[in-house]
Amino acid sequence: MENNLIKVGITHGDINGIGYEVILKAFSDSRLSELCIPIIYGSSKIAAYHRKALELPAINLNIINSAEDAGPNRVNLINCVDEDLKVELSKVTPAGGEAALQSLQAAVSDAQRGAIDVILTAPINKHNIQREGFHFPGHTEYFEQEFGNGRRSLMILMNDYLRVALVTGHIPLKDVPTQVTKEEILLKLNIFNHSLKADFGIECPRIAVLSLNPHAGENGLLGTEEEDIIIPAIKEAEKKGIYAFGPYASDGFFGSSSYDKFDGVLAMYHDQGLTAFKTIAMEDGVNFTAGLSIVRTSPAHGTAYEIVGQNVASEESFRKALYAALDIYRNRVSYREATANPLRKQYFDRSSDNVKLDLTKDDNEDIVMTNV
Amino acid sequence: MENNLIKVGITHGDINGIGYEVILKAFSDSRLSELCIPIIYGSSKIAAYHRKALELPAINLNIINSAEDAGPNRVNLINCVDEDLKVELSKVTPAGGEAALQSLQAAVSDAQRGAIDVILTAPINKHNIQREGFHFPGHTEYFEQEFGNGRRSLMILMNDYLRVALVTGHIPLKDVPTQVTKEEILLKLNIFNHSLKADFGIECPRIAVLSLNPHAGENGLLGTEEEDIIIPAIKEAEKKGIYAFGPYASDGFFGSSSYDKFDGVLAMYHDQGLTAFKTIAMEDGVNFTAGLSIVRTSPAHGTAYEIVGQNVASEESFRKALYAALDIYRNRVSYREATANPLRKQYFDRSSDNVKLDLTKDDNEDIVMTNV
Repeated sequence: MENNLIKVGITHGDINGIGYEVILKAFSDSRLSELCIPIIYGSSKIAAYHRKALELPAINLNIINSAEDAGPNRVNLINCVDEDLKVELSKVTPAGGEAALQSLQAAVSDAQRGAIDVILTAPINKHNIQREGFHFPGHTEYFEQEFGNGRRSLMILMNDYLRVALVTGHIPLKDVPTQVTKEEILLKLNIFNHSLKADFGIECPRIAVLSLNPHAGENGLLGTEEEDIIIPAIKEAEKKGIYAFGPYASDGFFGSSSYDKFDGVLAMYHDQGLTAFKTIAMEDGVNFTAGLSIVRTSPAHGTAYEIVGQNVASEESFRKALYAALDIYRNRVSYREATANPLRKQYFDRSSDNVKLDLTKDDNEDIVMTNV
Repeated sequence: MENNLIKVGITHGDINGIGYEVILKAFSDSRLSELCIPIIYGSSKIAAYHRKALELPAINLNIINSAEDAGPNRVNLINCVDEDLKVELSKVTPAGGEAALQSLQAAVSDAQRGAIDVILTAPINKHNIQREGFHFPGHTEYFEQEFGNGRRSLMILMNDYLRVALVTGHIPLKDVPTQVTKEEILLKLNIFNHSLKADFGIECPRIAVLSLNPHAGENGLLGTEEEDIIIPAIKEAEKKGIYAFGPYASDGFFGSSSYDKFDGVLAMYHDQGLTAFKTIAMEDGVNFTAGLSIVRTSPAHGTAYEIVGQNVASEESFRKALYAALDIYRNRVSYREATANPLRKQYFDRSSDNVKLDLTKDDNEDIVMTNV
């Protein structure tokens, strides 16, 4: 039984943000540590500081030296940050970035040697974590380097009934129209489609593609990118067996809850996808990085400096991120098993009408066509 | 009492859409015709057609020849469209556009001679209504010509707790960054601010201004328009006594329901404002055109051809548009009365410290400063 539990590496993120608050609140429910083997990469001292500051109920942390020592039915913690790093609640400090990075690197290194199965990251601050050897806009890009095997990854924002991915990300709005290309849409559709199959267990995923212009361009009156770029990309995706539909105008699409009819929604730019997603799912949103060799999720919120230390942060999103990581890990295992030994195709291009498939032969032999 | 009831002109919109369905459903509740004097500009024949097709309960229509004949406690109807115009449910037909235009023109003409107080428009189709003498992208632009007195109007999307207006409207996304100018933001802030005071009775309206770029530009990393255009516009508005705040990143703003703290939200472009608005308020959204000499509202939905004839359209939005028109009309009357004879300013730039205001003088005299 013990061996079946998934080992979840948890990074503590920015130590001046709400990371420890949501981690400690979530694991104050002991059922969570029965579901999996949680391993916090952080500092028992800093965890205690947050617990006291927030007057949270005490929870037992099982201090271990290496992931291999992690036991079930407890919350394990590996001390991996410098003892002298100081917490300054709500502040952007170099120490906050240093501690976040040490935690992240320890978890990534353990994942790479197979000591943990999935990684759940608490929010970092994108500014103070930058330093010699770490120049990434955020978690997603760092994980893409470490676990992407040279391929691109895709950020998916999700809750129980909505999954949103983006064609373009953190770029100025004026650059969006030039960066929305047919190739980029196809690439993202491909990663999205594969992830919906392998990570979410959906056999034939249906993906809704949003439009770039208002009213989906209204037949060219309000912009031509739909006809020139998006529709051709959808058609090409269709040829490759991806069930992509659209383009849909985002206001009507989200307003009428049309996302209920799809397994995923591909938005063209950051504010289009995220404004709708957060409006719908601020409380329980999860950020999942598709296309990596490891499963990585995180709560959709940030460090939330403005509410640190007030004991008002909700752990809902963190808990959902944990559930999502476990679900996705299990789905991947099932998908891998189910697709490991595919049945041979049982149809061929037939040169004449009198070709028959001989199914009486042994399974291990090559299936051969016989003329009758 | 009768004289106090507000006369509401109602245009039937596209006769192949859900216009009559929402009108008839709303007025099947007799309390609505006790609140005001409704006058439908349409066709009793077409109304009957829709009633039958949808199997709606019968309501008495009081057929009148002119708005002056409209009586209280009944639903009045002026036949003003050609007898031979045919209904073809869910279809975009020239007849549908013709009937929509005739209704609109009759109501506008009655409003111009003061026979009705407010106009409530059912949705039209923007394509089939275009013809010789009518070249407008939509209702808003037409009303701006007829009731704008040469000034610009502003579309406000609203429900009971959210009001959204746009800096740019129906234009391709690639044109948005160049059309978001300081002047345009200031102009829209001005109209918005005045409307919130006069139409909504808010003494010191607080307006949230959204950002153009993701994360509000993240200090210039993700775009410079915030620092170059939006922030200077907000500062200038502040100098003019407008309480404008921001710029706020739209995903976090709507996700955390920050709009609760403001009386209005100014979005930079169509999909930014409307995607969030419709996600929040699809069911009860109202479209109000601010800056006109007449009060004009409409439900936020369109002709909804896809559900015509199925008796599934909700009249909620139409009813809310009626309430909004009545509220705004009354607020305007109060505002006009309250501001008709303002008290004279009782402070002056003082040239020396020993200047005193003499309040013993008669109110009608000029207030004079006396040296003491």
